[in-house]
Amino acid sequence: MTKGIRIALAQLNVIVGDLAGNEQKIRESIQQAKQFQADLVAFPELAITGYPPEDLLLRPQFIRNNLDCLERIIPTTENITAIIGFAHSEQGRLFNAAAIVANGRLVDVYHKIHLPNYGVFDEKRYFEPGERPLILEWNDIKIGISICEDIWIQDSVIETQALSTGAEIILNISSSPYHSGKVEERENLLKNLAVNNRVPVCYVNLIGGQDELVFDGNSLILDEQGTILARGKQFEEDLILFDLDVTDLQNIRGRDESYQRRRLAFNPPFKIELIDLPDQPHVPFDRKAKLPFSENLKLDPIMEIYQALVLGTRDYVRKNGFKKVVLGLSGGIDSALTAAIAVDALGNENVIGVSMPSIFSSRGSLDDAAQLASNLGIQNLVIPIQVTFEAYQKMLQPTFGDLPFDTTEENIQARIRGNIIMALSNKFGWLALSTGNKSEISVGYCTLYGDMAGGFAVIKDVPKTLVYQLAKKLNETRGREIIPHNTMIKPPSAELKPDQKDEDSLPPYDVLDPILAEYVEKDATIEQIVALGFDEAIVRKVIRLVDQSEYKRRQGAPGVKITPRAFGKDRRMPITNRYRF
Amino acid sequence: MTKGIRIALAQLNVIVGDLAGNEQKIRESIQQAKQFQADLVAFPELAITGYPPEDLLLRPQFIRNNLDCLERIIPTTENITAIIGFAHSEQGRLFNAAAIVANGRLVDVYHKIHLPNYGVFDEKRYFEPGERPLILEWNDIKIGISICEDIWIQDSVIETQALSTGAEIILNISSSPYHSGKVEERENLLKNLAVNNRVPVCYVNLIGGQDELVFDGNSLILDEQGTILARGKQFEEDLILFDLDVTDLQNIRGRDESYQRRRLAFNPPFKIELIDLPDQPHVPFDRKAKLPFSENLKLDPIMEIYQALVLGTRDYVRKNGFKKVVLGLSGGIDSALTAAIAVDALGNENVIGVSMPSIFSSRGSLDDAAQLASNLGIQNLVIPIQVTFEAYQKMLQPTFGDLPFDTTEENIQARIRGNIIMALSNKFGWLALSTGNKSEISVGYCTLYGDMAGGFAVIKDVPKTLVYQLAKKLNETRGREIIPHNTMIKPPSAELKPDQKDEDSLPPYDVLDPILAEYVEKDATIEQIVALGFDEAIVRKVIRLVDQSEYKRRQGAPGVKITPRAFGKDRRMPITNRYRF
Repeated sequence: MTKGIRIALAQLNVIVGDLAGNEQKIRESIQQAKQFQADLVAFPELAITGYPPEDLLLRPQFIRNNLDCLERIIPTTENITAIIGFAHSEQGRLFNAAAIVANGRLVDVYHKIHLPNYGVFDEKRYFEPGERPLILEWNDIKIGISICEDIWIQDSVIETQALSTGAEIILNISSSPYHSGKVEERENLLKNLAVNNRVPVCYVNLIGGQDELVFDGNSLILDEQGTILARGKQFEEDLILFDLDVTDLQNIRGRDESYQRRRLAFNPPFKIELIDLPDQPHVPFDRKAKLPFSENLKLDPIMEIYQALVLGTRDYVRKNGFKKVVLGLSGGIDSALTAAIAVDALGNENVIGVSMPSIFSSRGSLDDAAQLASNLGIQNLVIPIQVTFEAYQKMLQPTFGDLPFDTTEENIQARIRGNIIMALSNKFGWLALSTGNKSEISVGYCTLYGDMAGGFAVIKDVPKTLVYQLAKKLNETRGREIIPHNTMIKPPSAELKPDQKDEDSLPPYDVLDPILAEYVEKDATIEQIVALGFDEAIVRKVIRLVDQSEYKRRQGAPGVKITPRAFGKDRRMPITNRYRF
Repeated sequence: MTKGIRIALAQLNVIVGDLAGNEQKIRESIQQAKQFQADLVAFPELAITGYPPEDLLLRPQFIRNNLDCLERIIPTTENITAIIGFAHSEQGRLFNAAAIVANGRLVDVYHKIHLPNYGVFDEKRYFEPGERPLILEWNDIKIGISICEDIWIQDSVIETQALSTGAEIILNISSSPYHSGKVEERENLLKNLAVNNRVPVCYVNLIGGQDELVFDGNSLILDEQGTILARGKQFEEDLILFDLDVTDLQNIRGRDESYQRRRLAFNPPFKIELIDLPDQPHVPFDRKAKLPFSENLKLDPIMEIYQALVLGTRDYVRKNGFKKVVLGLSGGIDSALTAAIAVDALGNENVIGVSMPSIFSSRGSLDDAAQLASNLGIQNLVIPIQVTFEAYQKMLQPTFGDLPFDTTEENIQARIRGNIIMALSNKFGWLALSTGNKSEISVGYCTLYGDMAGGFAVIKDVPKTLVYQLAKKLNETRGREIIPHNTMIKPPSAELKPDQKDEDSLPPYDVLDPILAEYVEKDATIEQIVALGFDEAIVRKVIRLVDQSEYKRRQGAPGVKITPRAFGKDRRMPITNRYRF
C-alpha cells in the first residue's frame, strides 16, 4: 500500500497588519486546497500578521486580534490539516509560532527555536525562543515542523527530527527575504538537508514586498535525494500541490549506511515531542483526482533581480494605497530603468514622467527622455527649471555676493526638481519615485531633498554596473528597445554644471562597484580590497566617501533590497563615527 | 582598623569610533585618579569604542583596534586598579566586557550577562551573553563587577554577588541613555539594590551625545542604606572621588535580620567566580590627602531636559566636525527654542538665523524673529521667498492649470525655505538644524524636504506643550527675556496660507499631547485613551494621523531623545501597515 500525503503549500502575498485580509486569503487557500483533496496545507511564517510586523508585535491589542483571526480560521479546517504562522502569546511571553490545526481543532502550537537577530532581522526584540521541536504523526507519517531560521542552523532542529526521531517529511514555513543569490543559497541548503538526513523537504515561503524587503516565493518540495520535485512561482502567489510518496523511505534509509551512521552518531540537543494525529480523513493517491502539472521554472539571474524590483515597487505603491507614480526623467539610465520597472509594476497608464531641463541639460537628454516615454507609452511632462533657478540665484545674491558657482548651485537645481516632483505628488496624489542607484548613494553622489526626494527609491540597492546589465537584459528579453540606445551608451552625467561627467568626481563604475561590494557587503578591510588589485588611494577615497555619507542615506526613501547587504536595517552604522578604516 | 577603598568614577564623554581619542581620555583619567591617590578607577561601558558602536562591532578590524587600545592602556595602571569597558572577542564570540586591570596587568575580563535588545538597544545583534558573575577581592574587600543592564534584572547578578557571595561593594559600569524621568528611575533602582542587599553601590555612567541618544552622566555612589554619598555632574564630564568605608558593613549585615533572611532564601542562578587581588598597594584614608568636596546637585526637571537638548546638539555638531549651524527663524516658539538651545550649545557667534518671509507671514513674525536674534545676540539673515514662490507657480501653471491653492502650494513655500537653508549650509559649511517638535512630527503636520530639512532636528522629541514649558523656564532661569514674550503668547501658525492657525487642523496641543503620549509612548489603545476622558473622534483622528505619517518620519533628521519613547530606533513601525487601531 502507498504511504503518502497530498501536500499544498500556500505561497501567499499577505500584507503587514491587514489581519482581516490575510485571514480571508488563508481561508480561501484552505478551501482551494480542499478542492484539490490536499491532506495538509501549509502557510508562510507569520502569515496572519504579515512579515515582519516589527513593533506592531509590542501591542497587546494587535496580538489579540491576530489570535482572533486564528480562532476564526480553525473551524474551516474540517477534513484537512493546516500549518499556519501566527504570533502566539503565552503567559506574557510571545512566540513566532506555527498553529497545527486539524479537522476543525487546534492540535498544538510550535514555537520557533532559532530567532534571527542579524542583518535585517530583529526577532529577539519581540520573541522568546521555543525549546520544543515537534513531530506531527499524521496518520502513519511523521512530519517534522519548523519555522524559517530553524533550518538554517546545523545539527539542531532538523537533524533532531530526521535523525533521532526519524521524521519522514520536513515541513518548514518561512518568510525568507530575497536577495540576489539567495535562491541558490536556499536550494543548496534544502538539498543538503534532504540528502544528509535522507528526508523529503517541503518549504513554503512568503511572496510580496514589504517596505525594503521583497519575498520571492520560490517554495520548494524536494525528495530525499535532494531532487526538486516542485517549485512555487517566483514573485507570484501560488498554491503548490504535490503527492509526496514516502512508502519506500524507511527501506531506503535502512539500506543507507551513511544515514545509519549519522543517526547513531547524532546527539540531539533537544527532546522531541510527538503529536499524534491518527485517523485523519485520507483518500489514497490512486483514488484522487490527478494534480495539475507543476512547472519547475527559474528566472534568469538578471531578470530575477528585475522581477524583485517590479514586485517590491508594485507592493509598496499598492499596499500604501497609491495608484499612480511620478518620477523625473533625466534621459539617463537610472531614471530610464526605474520608469521601466514602474511600468511593469503598475501599467503604463499609472506612470508619469517629468523632464526638468536646465541650461546644463543637453538637447540629447531631453530627446532620450522623450524616446523612453514613447518606448514605454507613458506621459512625459516637460517643466523647465531655468527661470526658477534664476529666482533662487537672485534671492540668494545678497547673501552669497560674488562667491563662485559650486556644488551649492548644483544642489539648488536638484532640489528645484525635487520640489517639482513633490508638488506633482501633492497636487495629484501620485507617489514620487526617486531614481538613485546604490553606487551614488554609497558615496553620497546625490542631493538630499533633490534627486533623493521621493517616497520610494526603486533602485537604491542596485549598483550602477548592474543598472546597465538590467537595462541591457530588459531590451534583449523584450526583443525591442525599451531603454533608448543613446541612454545606454552615453557617459553618465548629473548635468548640473557645464560638461559634467560622473567620472570627473568618481572612479569609473567598473572600479567603484567592486570596491563598494567588498566594503559595504563583505566588510572587507582596505588591505583586503587593495590585495584584489585596486589602487590604494582610490580605495581609501571610496571608503571615506561611504563613511561620510551615512547622514544622507539616513534620510533617504526606502527601496528594494536586492543585494546581500542593503543600506537600511541591514547595515546600522552610526552617523557620528570617528572610526576611519 | 579602617577597611575602605578610594574610588574614582571617570564619567567621560567618549566618541563612537574615536579609539585613539578615547584611549587618550582613559589614560588621562587614570593619571588623574592616581594623583588623587585613588585605589580603583572605573570607566563607562564600552568606554574604548564609545556607545553604541552599532555595526562597527561587526568589523573584525574595529574589534582588533579596540583590543590594541586596551593593550596600550594596561601598562599605565601601576599602583591602581582600573575597570574599563571594551568589546572582547574570544574564540569568534563577541562580548560587551569589562577589563579588570591592576598594577599594569590584565587580571580578568567580565562579560555582560544581560543584553538589552528592546527600545533603542540591539545588543543581541552583536554580543553573546556572559555566564560568569565576578567578585573582585581587592585586598580584603569584595567588589561585585557588573555592566549596565545587569543591575536592571532582579534576582540575578547583583543578588548573586551581594547575597550569596557577600560582596561589600557593587560596581556597575554603564552607558545608560537619558530620557526625562530616567534619573529618578535609576536612583530608585540603585537605592533599592543598596537597601535590599545591604551593600554600597558605585555606578559610573557615560556622558555625551551620540546621534539620537544623550547620556547624562549622573554617576552615583550610595551607601548600604541607599543614601547618596556622591553624584557626578549632569551632562558634563566628571571624575567622582570618594572614600568608601566598609569597616562596619559585616556588623551591620549581621544585625540585619531581613538581610540574613534574604541571604538564606536566595537561590543564586549562577556560580560566582572570585578574582583574588591581595597585596594591592594601598594607603589608608587617614594618611591620604583629603578629597575635594563633591556636590550632590540635581537640575530642575525642566532644565534637565533643556541641558539634555543642549548637550545632544553640541555633541552632534562638534563630533561631526561642524562649527556653525543655521536655522530658519519663523518668529514661532519652536525655532526660538531651537535657536536658544543652539546658542547654549555652540555660542552665539556660531548660530545663524534666517527669516524667510512670504506674503502669508505677518509683520509680527518678522519682528519676533528679529527680537529673538537680538535677545540671543545672533546674526539673522532675511531672505524673502515671494519672488521664488511666484516662479514656482508660473513654472507649474501649465501643469496645474486653474486647480485651487491647496497644501501643494503650502508645501512649495516650506520647501523653498528648506532649499535656502540647505543652500546656506552647502555654501558656508554650516550644519542645518530643523525645528519641528514631536507633536507635529507625530501627526505629520510638517513638510518633508521643507521645514523637516536639516542635519539635526533638535526638538523632534519635545512635545509642543513641553516646548512652551522649556521656553518659560528658560526665561525665568536667565532672569530676562530670551524667547520673546509675543512668541510665547501668540497662537501657533505655520503661516503658509491666509490666517492659518495650527488649531484649524489639529486639536489644541493640551489635548493632542496627552493623547500622543498615551499612544506613542505607552502603547495605549483607543479605549484606554478615551477612558481618560478624551473625545473618541479626536482620539481616532490623532491615531490615524500618527499611523499615516510613518513615511515622513522615516526621512526625518535625527534628534535628541528625551522621552521614554522617541521616534527612531526606539519605535520601529512598518511604513506599509494596514493595521488600524
